[in-house]
This record gives sequence, C-alpha cells and structure tokens, in this order.
Amino acid sequence: MKILLVGGHGTIGKRVATALKERNELIIAGRSSGDVRVDIGSEGSIADMFKQVGKMDACICTAGTGYYGPFATMTAEHMRPGLEGKLMGQVNLVLIGKEYLSEGGSFTLTSGIASEIPARNGTCVAMINGAINSWVLGAAQELKQDRRINVVSPGLVEDSYDRYRAFFPGYDLVSMGKVVNAYILSVEGAITGKILKVYA
Amino acid sequence: MKILLVGGHGTIGKRVATALKERNELIIAGRSSGDVRVDIGSEGSIADMFKQVGKMDACICTAGTGYYGPFATMTAEHMRPGLEGKLMGQVNLVLIGKEYLSEGGSFTLTSGIASEIPARNGTCVAMINGAINSWVLGAAQELKQDRRINVVSPGLVEDSYDRYRAFFPGYDLVSMGKVVNAYILSVEGAITGKILKVYA
Repeated sequence: MKILLVGGHGTIGKRVATALKERNELIIAGRSSGDVRVDIGSEGSIADMFKQVGKMDACICTAGTGYYGPFATMTAEHMRPGLEGKLMGQVNLVLIGKEYLSEGGSFTLTSGIASEIPARNGTCVAMINGAINSWVLGAAQELKQDRRINVVSPGLVEDSYDRYRAFFPGYDLVSMGKVVNAYILSVEGAITGKILKVYA
Repeated sequence: MKILLVGGHGTIGKRVATALKERNELIIAGRSSGDVRVDIGSEGSIADMFKQVGKMDACICTAGTGYYGPFATMTAEHMRPGLEGKLMGQVNLVLIGKEYLSEGGSFTLTSGIASEIPARNGTCVAMINGAINSWVLGAAQELKQDRRINVVSPGLVEDSYDRYRAFFPGYDLVSMGKVVNAYILSVEGAITGKILKVYA
C-alpha cells in the first residue's frame, strides 16, 4: 500500500511509521522534516503536498495541536492556530486529498479524549477534537467508491507521559501499541465512520 | 431574571422568547432586528452588544447556521461563515460575555443532531455542532462562581418542517414545546455541562 503519513515525526506518528513502513510504501510529511514538507494550516501547502505525492491508498494525519491555557484570559486569537491547523488542516486533507485517494482507500484522522473529558485549560482542544469526530461521521457517508474515513481518539499516551502528565491528572495511560493498532485497524480494516476511542 | 437572547427572531428563538418574556426581563439581540443588534461573526460586535446590555443573569444563543452542500465540491471557503458564526460566534459569546454574567448565571448555546447523525450534504454543520458540544463540556468546568453552561442539540423541529423536511428524510419531528423546555431547563435549572439532546 502507498501510505501518506502527515506528522510522521511526532510522538504518535513515529510509532505509526515504524509499524507501517515494513509492509508498505510509506511517505512521511512534516512541517520541518520528512519526505515531503507541509504546513497543514495552509490549503496551498496541502495541495502542493498531494501533487508531489500523487495517488495514494491511505492518508493518515497525526499532526496538529491546540491551545492549552487559562480559560479566564483565553480569546479567539489563542484558538486560531489550532482551529486552522488541527481542525481545518485535517478537514482540508480530506477535501483536497480525496481526489488523490484510490478507490477503497482510507483517511485516518486524529482527535483525542478531550472531546469527552476535557482537561483543565483544555477547552480549545476539546472543541477541536469534538469537531473532528463529527466531521468524520459526516465525511464517511459522503466519500464515494468505497473510500473510507475514521478518526483515532487517543487518551494520554505513554510516550507523552513525562511531558504531559501534570496536565492530565488521573487519565489512564495508554500503551503506544494500542494507539498504533487503532491506526492499523482504520487503514487495513474495512471500517468507516468510526471514532476509535483508545482511552486506556 | 434579566435574559439576553441572541437570535430571538429565528425559528427556535422566537418560541423561546415567547416562553421567557412573561416572567423575565428579556432582551432580544439579532443581526437585523431586536432590542440590540449583533453580528456574532464579529468579536467587536459581540463586545459592543454586551456593553449595551450590561450585567445579565442568562445568555441564550439560538443564532447561527452552517453550510449545506455537495461534499464533492465543498471547500474550506464554503465552511468559513458557519465556522466564524455558529461556532466561533457562540465561543466568543462565552469568552466575552462571561464578564457580564451574574454569579450563578447561565449560558445556553445551540448545536444540533447533525453532530451524531449528519444529514446528506451536512458534514460542515456536523463538525460545527460537534465542536460546540465539546466546547460546552470544557467551558462548564472552567466557569467560576457557579456560572453554568449547557447546549441544546435539537433534531428537526416542527417549525422547520416545511423548509427542511426534504433535507432530513426520516428524522423524527420534534415539537417546539420540547425544544423550548430544554432552554428553560438550562436557564432555570441547576444543570451545567450538559448536552440536552432533543431528537424526538
């Protein structure tokens, strides 16, 4: 399979890359490294990436983040980068990338547990994750010729523990193997329109 | 109670207004009519509205809509008005309006069934509604001094039947009384962080 992995050098992405690269032709896209460069906050950059990559059998996105910070002083301005990146970036990967996706091919996006259980200071990220989940439900029934789309919604993953544990007290730690499996299920399985919750 | 109702001349808003106005001081805000004018797509306009209204006990938003149209040709550009209006408009009502909300006061936003069961051509609206639902979960745990926030998620409402039935085949028709009750429950009850689903 020819697979495009956007964010393949991130915490989750590099684990997904390791799992997929042996059996597939894997192309990694990243903002500052990778086989192709992309800024998912820019429609033009996404279009350029797909032109370079050409036809593919799967597109996975593990890129994008959102604002964490005190609610009392948060403004729309704080929310913009996440809105344009993790949210509209993933939306545009689908809207633009569907023309490059093979029949029967799949998109796999990434949201997160915050859509249901937001962390303190994480209301912006909660919103973005909830948006992506519902986007995928809609997109799944619109994609044609057996094209599929799912979203992986991870909890606090092992590899983020040192960096993020202070912000997610009481969240179960999720093994990287389980998270990676969700991406593989989406790419190699037959499911579509699923929110794959990997919370524990 | 002093209640600000944004979108009080819309399909749902005018029913909510009728139910609330007898027992409360009701201020209706709208884009082209109402006691105060507001364009919820503009942070400046929202700030001006709250300055005019001053301290309030409840803020309800029944305004805002999103793009319906063919997925095959949809672009981010089609999605912008809904993203800036129904989504970021409601977000900004909370971020800016919380300074004007009394202790113990409430916000009530509006999403819709599309977050879970998107209509054909409704992927943009699905995304917006999912975003608002998760936003409310986060905001509820951040608001201080007993301030509350809930979201009403209506299905296909009676008063929209003639206009929208062709777009929502098989959706149960929801009585206006039930929808109005959800807003009253949010404003006059003690609940917070709830997604009030009124699907049938």
